[in-house]
Amino acid sequence: MDNTFGLLYRITTFGESHGGAVGVVIDGCPAGHQISIERVQHFLNRRRPGQSHLSTPRAEQDQVECLSGLVNNISLGTPITLIVRNKDAKQDHYSDLAQVYRPSHADYTTDAKFGVKAPSGGGRASARETIGRVAAAAVAEQVLETLIPGYQTVAFVESVKDIKADIQSPESISREQVDQTPLRCPDESSQRAMEACIVAAKKKGDSVGGTIFCGIKNCLPGLGAPVFDKLEADLAKAMMSLPASKGFEVGSGFSATQLFGSEHNDEFENQGGKIRTRSNRSGGIQGGISNGEFIYLRVAFKPVATIFKDQASVDREGQEVVMKPKAGRHDPCVLPRAVPMIEAMATLVIMDHYLRQLAFTHGRGPHKV
Amino acid sequence: MDNTFGLLYRITTFGESHGGAVGVVIDGCPAGHQISIERVQHFLNRRRPGQSHLSTPRAEQDQVECLSGLVNNISLGTPITLIVRNKDAKQDHYSDLAQVYRPSHADYTTDAKFGVKAPSGGGRASARETIGRVAAAAVAEQVLETLIPGYQTVAFVESVKDIKADIQSPESISREQVDQTPLRCPDESSQRAMEACIVAAKKKGDSVGGTIFCGIKNCLPGLGAPVFDKLEADLAKAMMSLPASKGFEVGSGFSATQLFGSEHNDEFENQGGKIRTRSNRSGGIQGGISNGEFIYLRVAFKPVATIFKDQASVDREGQEVVMKPKAGRHDPCVLPRAVPMIEAMATLVIMDHYLRQLAFTHGRGPHKV
Amino acid sequence: MDNTFGLLYRITTFGESHGGAVGVVIDGCPAGHQISIERVQHFLNRRRPGQSHLSTPRAEQDQVECLSGLVNNISLGTPITLIVRNKDAKQDHYSDLAQVYRPSHADYTTDAKFGVKAPSGGGRASARETIGRVAAAAVAEQVLETLIPGYQTVAFVESVKDIKADIQSPESISREQVDQTPLRCPDESSQRAMEACIVAAKKKGDSVGGTIFCGIKNCLPGLGAPVFDKLEADLAKAMMSLPASKGFEVGSGFSATQLFGSEHNDEFENQGGKIRTRSNRSGGIQGGISNGEFIYLRVAFKPVATIFKDQASVDREGQEVVMKPKAGRHDPCVLPRAVPMIEAMATLVIMDHYLRQLAFTHGRGPHKV
Amino acid sequence: MDNTFGLLYRITTFGESHGGAVGVVIDGCPAGHQISIERVQHFLNRRRPGQSHLSTPRAEQDQVECLSGLVNNISLGTPITLIVRNKDAKQDHYSDLAQVYRPSHADYTTDAKFGVKAPSGGGRASARETIGRVAAAAVAEQVLETLIPGYQTVAFVESVKDIKADIQSPESISREQVDQTPLRCPDESSQRAMEACIVAAKKKGDSVGGTIFCGIKNCLPGLGAPVFDKLEADLAKAMMSLPASKGFEVGSGFSATQLFGSEHNDEFENQGGKIRTRSNRSGGIQGGISNGEFIYLRVAFKPVATIFKDQASVDREGQEVVMKPKAGRHDPCVLPRAVPMIEAMATLVIMDHYLRQLAFTHGRGPHKV
Repeated sequence: MDNTFGLLYRITTFGESHGGAVGVVIDGCPAGHQISIERVQHFLNRRRPGQSHLSTPRAEQDQVECLSGLVNNISLGTPITLIVRNKDAKQDHYSDLAQVYRPSHADYTTDAKFGVKAPSGGGRASARETIGRVAAAAVAEQVLETLIPGYQTVAFVESVKDIKADIQSPESISREQVDQTPLRCPDESSQRAMEACIVAAKKKGDSVGGTIFCGIKNCLPGLGAPVFDKLEADLAKAMMSLPASKGFEVGSGFSATQLFGSEHNDEFENQGGKIRTRSNRSGGIQGGISNGEFIYLRVAFKPVATIFKDQASVDREGQEVVMKPKAGRHDPCVLPRAVPMIEAMATLVIMDHYLRQLAFTHGRGPHKV
Repeated sequence: MDNTFGLLYRITTFGESHGGAVGVVIDGCPAGHQISIERVQHFLNRRRPGQSHLSTPRAEQDQVECLSGLVNNISLGTPITLIVRNKDAKQDHYSDLAQVYRPSHADYTTDAKFGVKAPSGGGRASARETIGRVAAAAVAEQVLETLIPGYQTVAFVESVKDIKADIQSPESISREQVDQTPLRCPDESSQRAMEACIVAAKKKGDSVGGTIFCGIKNCLPGLGAPVFDKLEADLAKAMMSLPASKGFEVGSGFSATQLFGSEHNDEFENQGGKIRTRSNRSGGIQGGISNGEFIYLRVAFKPVATIFKDQASVDREGQEVVMKPKAGRHDPCVLPRAVPMIEAMATLVIMDHYLRQLAFTHGRGPHKV
Repeated sequence: MDNTFGLLYRITTFGESHGGAVGVVIDGCPAGHQISIERVQHFLNRRRPGQSHLSTPRAEQDQVECLSGLVNNISLGTPITLIVRNKDAKQDHYSDLAQVYRPSHADYTTDAKFGVKAPSGGGRASARETIGRVAAAAVAEQVLETLIPGYQTVAFVESVKDIKADIQSPESISREQVDQTPLRCPDESSQRAMEACIVAAKKKGDSVGGTIFCGIKNCLPGLGAPVFDKLEADLAKAMMSLPASKGFEVGSGFSATQLFGSEHNDEFENQGGKIRTRSNRSGGIQGGISNGEFIYLRVAFKPVATIFKDQASVDREGQEVVMKPKAGRHDPCVLPRAVPMIEAMATLVIMDHYLRQLAFTHGRGPHKV
Repeated sequence: MDNTFGLLYRITTFGESHGGAVGVVIDGCPAGHQISIERVQHFLNRRRPGQSHLSTPRAEQDQVECLSGLVNNISLGTPITLIVRNKDAKQDHYSDLAQVYRPSHADYTTDAKFGVKAPSGGGRASARETIGRVAAAAVAEQVLETLIPGYQTVAFVESVKDIKADIQSPESISREQVDQTPLRCPDESSQRAMEACIVAAKKKGDSVGGTIFCGIKNCLPGLGAPVFDKLEADLAKAMMSLPASKGFEVGSGFSATQLFGSEHNDEFENQGGKIRTRSNRSGGIQGGISNGEFIYLRVAFKPVATIFKDQASVDREGQEVVMKPKAGRHDPCVLPRAVPMIEAMATLVIMDHYLRQLAFTHGRGPHKV
């Protein structure tokens, strides 16, 4: 059950980083929608490593193939299966690591849970697992655009280590702006400093983390639910299920704790017949349900665990060892590649709640309380 | 589906704050466990408003009644139903608010979603809804204690507005220490300052927020899952589904972004045959799965939306109005009462994953990879 | 999870036959519908034992109480909780049976599964458990009637032992006709023979079984799904989850095996712009999805296991014993009371698939294949 | 959600009969089990058409490929993905049928539900969809054999049209005996008559149906659940989700309605310390839970809808037409190929309930009631 996400737009991902293929089955995509596989490929390209000198040289092609669910690019309402073959699996890179638990990786816990340990380490606990998520969201986005006018998610790198971008109006940033630099930070001077920081860390064999900001534009009011499936709760789960994420906040987030209620509340007004809030510290969600304003959130990522320095550890037999990793192929900073993953998770949550809301709205009776 | 949480320890809560009763059905509680209803009552008392001058004078008794699932205090393996009658429902308190959307409450979004608006406002979006959660966790805790030696959750108020407690070793704090003061902050001097801060806000008709720290002691390694149902992801959803929560972090959390990988990684060592980490920035979870260390997390709560100051808003007909609330009965700060709610949500997540892990562990084959 | 049924109209039943109460939480009832509790009570009365000399003298009142989800009889879109207190629990009736496994009851298997054995025998395996199902369906029926014009389920007793009713056009039978006799068989002469058969069995301390026919009128085309959640598959699960049911068939059922394909196929025709089938051996469902025709099915019930004759058995300690039951209070034939249960299960399936179909239909894109 | 089956052993099937591939993702297969892909292939071969002159000449090879979840044939505890490419898709065979609703097929209802109609007709409503189910069960069977000593399912053709096999002790029939004839009926003389019946129907362009008997050997006591997820209810859903099935019965089934309770009840006895029933009209299940006896059930299949005779119908524009099908490639009788499908569905249900029972059993407390 762990590999399934969503109730009505239900995706199941599969695949280890070094097996035959990774992919996703999408169950619940409505019929009659035009789905461009090229656009799915474009999303996967954004997620792919090896896009710049900042990330791993692993030159995967990540070519997507559709096995079911579409005829002539039209969705049939049946499961859409998308796979990407694993081409560049140099398994020997990892062989000497196979018996040692890498610090702050999933090796030890995977072993504790399953009693087996995939040759490539944590098995499913790999950034490569997110290919299925991004592909599923690329389909969902094409559907949502036809159902919700103006629907869009835009994420960007907001901070790397102690360098924070200065973005005045995040709701006006476009995905094109974000993609102009490999770092995916739309603040020109900050992104130069971030880049320098990452390059310096890489030189030392070290890694860095940071935060990503994500906005959802033109979401309808009424999506979400009042109790466990609050929109912010499902977004939190979605984001905290991404590898290396350590924190999540929505709207004012942790900074809300510094304000009085009278400073924090968002007053309502009538803007030409539309009920709007004057401020948006709620982040577009109130009581678990969207209010039609700009939804925004922030995710914290730790510095990636793979570093090229000596580290103390223990092997599967319990022997204490010192790991002396050779140079390998990993990002010193996952932030730029995490941008499309976060957009993907946001869209998967919205898509699911949108379908759920269709049943609610159209099943409604005529009576008011 | 929104009112259900968990896969194998599955709870369904019900009840509005001003209807006949609130409660919970617990499906999946294993049979043969001794369950003390007095202890469930004790948990509800900790959650209840009116415990001190810091919280609302609403003198609810929250007397729990068990409708099913127990015979002579032994669990039958069938659904356990626990209800609390709503006794003190002075509905008129709310009548003049019924047609105005209170800022930063769930009134408007509930109306947008359901097309109806309960007389008491947001309906299910009420702190009273959490009674069912706390009761269900009080049952789970009694079961977990027999299955996992030393299992315990302890949460406390860590900050109120800009006042932060100084707790050196949170893993040594006990629930008794926390409950010694109504504020539930085990740092004596900080809690006095916090109390003054809350009293001052109350006098001005205002409200304040803060953060809660929660630790889970003696969790087994192997709980959780590597992909969507990561332990931290399910904990995040659990916490972000509590009313007024705005942010979540696990382990090093947002502060992880300030460190190099070489500073952040938790090296392994062998402590008398047990694999342990030397530090615990992972917060007891790696790659979504517990590693046996102390699990800890933090939740941010906004200042509660109910304040006693004039606020601009809009009524259901779209007319702009100024709300001039009379004195009512609400907390100026939810933090102390949120402590048992957070412990409850943590236990619900652990209980569910523990049962899931039983199937995994005992279904395992003999082969290693 | 066992106590929950449905995906979008999701009901969770609870309660043992001799505990505090039995009941149901309905999650997913759309908002804004007028729900008459009197009508729920009417359904429960139809299900209740003690309605005639044919059934048990247990004079339960089964008075329903609503704990949540309605304000002024209007649904809020939140969980609707309905309970019935257990009033007439003469537990001593059962005390001497508590340690012996009654043949063909759930006593032994309940013990094998849970390791506990409720004083009343099988615990949840009681006809009384169906109260929650019938109450939940009574709510659903009121909603469906406003959403699907002419929607109705009508079931009746079709056979008792070897006596089979002769009903020419079951689609024209009304619920009122069925309820005219305590036996709920709308064929006057057959029902007299059935009654005689039951009375004779009762005199001998024995029991009898039979079949129930159920029709669903005016179901829309398009409900159901093509793979696992075929409408007939969900109906089969629903019916086979009723106590004492042993068989299920839809449309032509087992008799279909006697025909050639050319005799069995339902040809299509255009009736004034509406696509209809000339015959209806499909029973209103093709490939798992409703086609708009009359849906009909049949359920077989075994003779109830409680009889008043000596029977060999074994007690919990493994001792072989001969059970010599005193006179107690059970039906010699569950068929008449099973009629509203079967209507209820049919409506629960249709309601769930109707809500699911709303999301499908309204999420559809404009393209055809 | 329709394409997913099971709670803990959760399978999701995908693929249309004439797209890129069909297959399955298995989520929940325990780790550490040796899984032979050759054995999966063997199961698919049993399901495959073209095995004899009795079935369609469509010479699919149905070569299975594993994309994830296994390393060196050992299960990792991660999703196992198995696909079969569609090789022999002569789409033009179907082109002239694409716009006409074939009688008693899923064409019309698929169109009614989804608003699209796959070129190959009903899309997912194809016997080819069952490849994923059979593959998933072939994995489950290998796991179950190591966990439950002696576990086995054996199904066989019990009747074709009005010819009924005479099998005295079905619990002693082996799968090898069944597979000795293409008809998969282990009664030599009956199977000859059945074969003649099918050949005669084929000559006339017609089709026939029949029933399949399925037994489950050595199932543990305690599997199943007392309310909605009764073992017989889940088996009923499983079987009624197979294409062309019209009826289901367990144990004594419909014939139970002909007996008195005193004739039908299964008395208990102590056989060398083991609690057994003297007769087995319960079919190994009491109150939804297995009692350790031989589980048996029966499924009715209609004559397949594809026949080679003129039939009246309607096209997508509503025009009445007469279908004059050319010779094509379909079975005149699905029964022999349905045998492995039914075994597969039985194993999927048992596997899921077995994993669920592991959590129950090992989560149990020490107290008895």
